[in-house]
Amino acid sequence: MGRTVIEHVLHRLKQTGISDVFGVPGDYAFSINDAICTDKDLRWIGNCNELNASYAADGYARIRGMAALCTTYGVGELSAINGLAGSYAEHVPVFSLVGMPPSGVQTARRLVHHTLGNGEFDLFYRMADPVVCARAVMTPENCAAETERLIAAAIEHRRPVYMGFPSDYANMPVIGTTDLLPVPASDPETLEAAAEAICAAVKRSRTACFLAGILVPRLGLNDQATALVDATGLPFATMYMDKCAIGEAHPAYMGMYDGKLLNEEVRAFVEGCDCVINLGALLTDVSTGAFTANLDPRKTIHVMHHHVRVGFAIYNHVEMNDLIEVLTGKTTRRTDIKCPRVHGLGDPQGAAGDRITAEYLYPRWEKMLRPNDILIAETGTTGMGMAFARMPEGATFQNQTLWGSIGWATPAAFGAAFSSPECRTILITGDGSHQLTAQEVSQFPRFGLKPIIFVLNNDGYLIERLLCKDPDIYYNDLAQWNYAALPTALGCEGWFTARVNTCGELDEAINRAETCGTGAYIEVVADKYMASPLSQKMHESIDTLYA
Amino acid sequence: MGRTVIEHVLHRLKQTGISDVFGVPGDYAFSINDAICTDKDLRWIGNCNELNASYAADGYARIRGMAALCTTYGVGELSAINGLAGSYAEHVPVFSLVGMPPSGVQTARRLVHHTLGNGEFDLFYRMADPVVCARAVMTPENCAAETERLIAAAIEHRRPVYMGFPSDYANMPVIGTTDLLPVPASDPETLEAAAEAICAAVKRSRTACFLAGILVPRLGLNDQATALVDATGLPFATMYMDKCAIGEAHPAYMGMYDGKLLNEEVRAFVEGCDCVINLGALLTDVSTGAFTANLDPRKTIHVMHHHVRVGFAIYNHVEMNDLIEVLTGKTTRRTDIKCPRVHGLGDPQGAAGDRITAEYLYPRWEKMLRPNDILIAETGTTGMGMAFARMPEGATFQNQTLWGSIGWATPAAFGAAFSSPECRTILITGDGSHQLTAQEVSQFPRFGLKPIIFVLNNDGYLIERLLCKDPDIYYNDLAQWNYAALPTALGCEGWFTARVNTCGELDEAINRAETCGTGAYIEVVADKYMASPLSQKMHESIDTLYA
Repeated sequence: MGRTVIEHVLHRLKQTGISDVFGVPGDYAFSINDAICTDKDLRWIGNCNELNASYAADGYARIRGMAALCTTYGVGELSAINGLAGSYAEHVPVFSLVGMPPSGVQTARRLVHHTLGNGEFDLFYRMADPVVCARAVMTPENCAAETERLIAAAIEHRRPVYMGFPSDYANMPVIGTTDLLPVPASDPETLEAAAEAICAAVKRSRTACFLAGILVPRLGLNDQATALVDATGLPFATMYMDKCAIGEAHPAYMGMYDGKLLNEEVRAFVEGCDCVINLGALLTDVSTGAFTANLDPRKTIHVMHHHVRVGFAIYNHVEMNDLIEVLTGKTTRRTDIKCPRVHGLGDPQGAAGDRITAEYLYPRWEKMLRPNDILIAETGTTGMGMAFARMPEGATFQNQTLWGSIGWATPAAFGAAFSSPECRTILITGDGSHQLTAQEVSQFPRFGLKPIIFVLNNDGYLIERLLCKDPDIYYNDLAQWNYAALPTALGCEGWFTARVNTCGELDEAINRAETCGTGAYIEVVADKYMASPLSQKMHESIDTLYA
Repeated sequence: MGRTVIEHVLHRLKQTGISDVFGVPGDYAFSINDAICTDKDLRWIGNCNELNASYAADGYARIRGMAALCTTYGVGELSAINGLAGSYAEHVPVFSLVGMPPSGVQTARRLVHHTLGNGEFDLFYRMADPVVCARAVMTPENCAAETERLIAAAIEHRRPVYMGFPSDYANMPVIGTTDLLPVPASDPETLEAAAEAICAAVKRSRTACFLAGILVPRLGLNDQATALVDATGLPFATMYMDKCAIGEAHPAYMGMYDGKLLNEEVRAFVEGCDCVINLGALLTDVSTGAFTANLDPRKTIHVMHHHVRVGFAIYNHVEMNDLIEVLTGKTTRRTDIKCPRVHGLGDPQGAAGDRITAEYLYPRWEKMLRPNDILIAETGTTGMGMAFARMPEGATFQNQTLWGSIGWATPAAFGAAFSSPECRTILITGDGSHQLTAQEVSQFPRFGLKPIIFVLNNDGYLIERLLCKDPDIYYNDLAQWNYAALPTALGCEGWFTARVNTCGELDEAINRAETCGTGAYIEVVADKYMASPLSQKMHESIDTLYA
């Protein structure tokens, strides 16, 4: 017998580089669960719940390029749908494999569990539509072709796809075969014209620079983009969502560009350039410093996934990878551009016995970063504090800047750590965010992973205190947890845990975390209003943020 | 100035009996959050995450009749959508209040956080469609009319409704007024005809009985249905989803009807009746004993929310409450029917030093139940074990039988306890289910609530072990938690916690829990395959369950 429907799909997913599937099992998904567990080249990663699984898959895909998620019908897939939406917004390709009731049950419209009781079986498939770039219910007849279409869509859009498997169909042999689909290709003449236009714009510019954008890592083009920067001699800045799109240890790195909110010298330089080449950045509210960035469209070039825009002219059918390669070959190196130099957060300000302040904490965290670290920074004031830290060689900064779903970071850190056990994974989250998904900490020890986790306990949702009318209003308060006691309850045997109140205790705990050889979980107690500089600026920019 | 849009909606929700709103705050929802916190007749209940909030709202509405949930745009509402789907499936009306970006941001299609980055702002509103019975985006102009339409829909369908609030619109004064809408009314002649048909059927029957169904409590008709049972003199049984629809202390109660799986004497009697009156039960897979129930449609009468079916004849425009009232007045009391008598689980079987078995555990749990207890039983083997316990006077059994989303029970117990702090709330859950939503335990102490929580630690998803091909397959395993250490980590100061391995330890812990005057959390350690009788039967009924 040839491969079954699920075996065929898993086989093709493995060929795209996926070796692990995150999820929660369920009876309608047993066909998928069984096939994963019996495939010696795949690992099943059972998460605590489906939303956490989808965040973990997202974290994994950010490092590995693609991920797979498996949930059961209705209850499972709907629990995960917010995570999938985040992957959609942030261009993270996740294959969502959903187990469905057997075809006969669907046809007979039976009143079975995990349905709304109305005999409809395509509702959840339809609900997924806005948050996936393509979807199909897999059958023996369509499996060969649909698998290729969906993989191609995930590659084309770098976004999630949905594959539904009626449990009986999943175990039937695939009927027929299909050729692999071609990857998107540039139109050679348009590519050439776009590259010429960009070279000409750079050449006639007095000053020029790059903005290194999120699509660079999403398309796996970090090395190519770095080579382009080297070839051009132009400096680059990054915006919030794009942090580490090109490594921050690079000598041409100027620092973060965040509109008028911070780093005025970077803003003045970037906005003063007569040519700014945006390599795949999205101009979101947070990335643009609450819309205070001001990029003149006449002077700005956008190199996006499948098109280029030079001033007001759009060049379609130009692939980013091709364009970067051609530009790198064509360009003449500039050596005449004077630009700002990146600076980090400086030395921590405070004495050992002092309570922990933003002036101590964020520089201290920056100081502990090492090459190749994976830093997962949660939405909110902590992420905003670390966005201006300078990341070492090979280190990456992961944040869900556009979707901004609090709780993402803890499971995403698990997914990222799982994808790269050879790297250090550091999770920095706030108490409010951590409460949403904290149970996923229990997965690290299960797989021998040793993250360093910091939970900033500032007694509430600080970012909300900074954005709402009455910061002390009751809804910004949280249930009071003993965070440092959580790892023990969650089965993290032998982990180093600490609750630190002073700068000295923080230092000591970081030193222990870095040398203990186990996972580490550190609760950092801070004042309710201890805000990172950017979050303070956001507070002052409410008018433009919501305009 | 008159009421604002949000003030108007909250005012009307209070009039329907809602005094609390569950949720997680967020910047686009601040208008709603602020209005709730500044209304002295409303309480804001901040949950750990949105799915938990939606489960808590569901638990609250099961007791109170209605509930309200508030989440922010995109990230919040999609996290909660599975909970809303569960409320839809199980006929639980929840008002879902969603904060949206200001109207100007939507019109300008701005690239803001919590969007997919595509300038579309109606996608999540559309995604909610299948899991709500009505929905609207509220504006000053439509607010008066739409509020009435949505409240009427929630009453008509006993299902969730969705109300989206662009944050600026929420704070604008309502324009215009609308009359309240009439509640659904029976057509008098059809009502009379239906009642006559039923009376005639009962009269000519040799034996007859009721099935007390879920719609009875959902429509708040427990007393009326009990009066009908009394007036007719007929016995009644219940199915799984309907447990406690009419109190189990009633002398006419025969016990659970579960097809061929258990309680053969009840099955034989019910299926042997020549008239079975179903008061609002849904014939789901689990309720019908994996479709082994066999109710002859010629002999069965279905009294549903807005219609009645007698044999093959349907009577529309007949409201259940009216029909019950008319029937109660018309009926002649039967005293000639011999039927089975309910029995409970009997005495716990085991000695103090024995490991805990199903034969000890479920009877022991039954034994501790007291009048007016609220028992929240999770989907899976624990719920299946307790479904056959006999509930005392006034006690209720809550279970998500149709939707069956594991994790529901822990937050639902919080919502139920919150709704009725004067009752004891007992949560019985399994380890696998508990892991999904365990952090919500931290909410009980925040509101002074003192539940008794049992977590059955049987090292994995037992119901799945019973339903899948290879029970020991890896995906049925869990991260190993120290459950009994969880309450301390989650801030449940002073709670009684215990981990029990033997029958004697269980007894001791139950005694302590019942007298300690604090919340109690008991981890019950059991063998991996310690299955309740019904779950064992489900294992043997896979063929009919998935047919």
